[in-house]
Amino acid sequence: MANKNWILMVTAQTPTNIAVIKYWGKRDETLILPINDSISVTLDPEHLCTTTTVAVSPSFESDKMWLNGKEISLAGGRYQSCLREIRSRANDVEDEEKGISIKKQDWDKLHVHIASFNNFPTAAGLASSAAGFACLVYSLAKLMNVKEEQGKLSAIARQGSGSACRSLFGGFVKWIMGNEANGSDSMAVQLASETHWDDLVIIIAVVSSRQKETSSTSGMRESVDTSPLLHYRSKEVVPKRILQMEEAIKTRDFPSFAKLTCTDSNQFHAVCLDTSPPIFYMNDTSHRQVLLLSCFSVLLITTL
Amino acid sequence: MANKNWILMVTAQTPTNIAVIKYWGKRDETLILPINDSISVTLDPEHLCTTTTVAVSPSFESDKMWLNGKEISLAGGRYQSCLREIRSRANDVEDEEKGISIKKQDWDKLHVHIASFNNFPTAAGLASSAAGFACLVYSLAKLMNVKEEQGKLSAIARQGSGSACRSLFGGFVKWIMGNEANGSDSMAVQLASETHWDDLVIIIAVVSSRQKETSSTSGMRESVDTSPLLHYRSKEVVPKRILQMEEAIKTRDFPSFAKLTCTDSNQFHAVCLDTSPPIFYMNDTSHRQVLLLSCFSVLLITTL
Repeated sequence: MANKNWILMVTAQTPTNIAVIKYWGKRDETLILPINDSISVTLDPEHLCTTTTVAVSPSFESDKMWLNGKEISLAGGRYQSCLREIRSRANDVEDEEKGISIKKQDWDKLHVHIASFNNFPTAAGLASSAAGFACLVYSLAKLMNVKEEQGKLSAIARQGSGSACRSLFGGFVKWIMGNEANGSDSMAVQLASETHWDDLVIIIAVVSSRQKETSSTSGMRESVDTSPLLHYRSKEVVPKRILQMEEAIKTRDFPSFAKLTCTDSNQFHAVCLDTSPPIFYMNDTSHRQVLLLSCFSVLLITTL
Repeated sequence: MANKNWILMVTAQTPTNIAVIKYWGKRDETLILPINDSISVTLDPEHLCTTTTVAVSPSFESDKMWLNGKEISLAGGRYQSCLREIRSRANDVEDEEKGISIKKQDWDKLHVHIASFNNFPTAAGLASSAAGFACLVYSLAKLMNVKEEQGKLSAIARQGSGSACRSLFGGFVKWIMGNEANGSDSMAVQLASETHWDDLVIIIAVVSSRQKETSSTSGMRESVDTSPLLHYRSKEVVPKRILQMEEAIKTRDFPSFAKLTCTDSNQFHAVCLDTSPPIFYMNDTSHRQVLLLSCFSVLLITTL
């Protein structure tokens, strides 16, 4: 470690995921613990994804990060949680080719540089933070030779952005809300792999690539505080839908899958509207798309 | 009654009413019995109103009606209910000046002609059916010398259009959902007269005067059948809001009145969105208006 000129890098690519039973509302803001289970489909990494390179060098004087080429602050609690959790699990790293040897205890003194790129609009409702934090945690874990299994990594990514935990698996993924106060059992599990339902195609129609007017974080906080309907949804509606959705995925039952996805997405938007002041994530164009989809579902249900 | 040339007419004017705690969902489609109480403000009859003239003559061969100058069918159950209920309560009518004498039992053989005009867009979300049926029932009751008190008349108007029962009173009106299976106790009561809160001004901003894509009748039927949130709203949310709104009206507490009105309107739209297929009664323009109003309420709450 005397020579300060070496640099060690890891690059990873992580797709975004789209919830089919929605996550909306936290019971713990710091640990990011949700008020209900959720289920998502992880997209093909060839399409919407984040590519992150993490680098470590004794010449780096502080942790730094660039998002889409622009430096951003790592001071926020969410970045700090992920960095802290990964660092605390770091192990010895040997790169014989480069002649680099990092001891477990060295990681506390070393700084990282992180460069992250999204190949799709950021903060526009396409789960950029999910892909971003999943990729950050995964690439840092690789760099630091963390040996945790994927589920444990997902619980770390969750502390960056809730839905990020679901992006650490391909295919169909369930985020189990968990019961523990410390969040240790709030993590993602894979329900079915990406090969399970090969002919399922997801089409993303970008209605607007502008940044959302209300971030998910503040939106769900306001919903938890003010929407009477959200609490009924999380306690009474979602648990039943989770079981129905697991069954629909297992049996590749497209009519049920499509119907549940549409109704749950609409209910999420309904809860946003029940929030004070109300949150509108849809506009006239997305209204028309949703109505078109409703017609399709009905068609599919009656013809399949 | 031998001379067939006489004609007797009554003209009445009834304002529309705007619900501040919304009616959405019936427990009986035929009798029009709601799943929750609602509260409305009756507008000034100088502004949005229906003007209806009802005429009776032995020369009329059938009941007929014209709405905004265009003949419409009276065959529907709702018109038939109102006509039947009023006819069954008709009394002797004497017009000495014209030399007309109608006996109670004659009304079953006489036919009426009805001409109704709205001075505002019909079926565009401005409660035209409320004003229309209230005016129809009121003018028929006058013509046929019906002696029922206003509350009983409101229960008849309710069978034409639920919210019509509220337009038979001025000021602040509550439609009590009632418990009886025959609907006899589902009627309107006046909470406070039009003079109670003199400086309250209601501004109606017409975003679109096009007819709604989903009628209230079929919309609320679909919500009752498919929205899990509606049932929670009607059972758990509305009863509390009714009490809060009664208190806000009684004490002329504008911040509470405005806040409750906005949140309940938004929750009604939320339930529409939770319906399958979803119902959208708002567009981008009304979204902007709602957000502007939210800001105003907040301002008023903090400054008053």
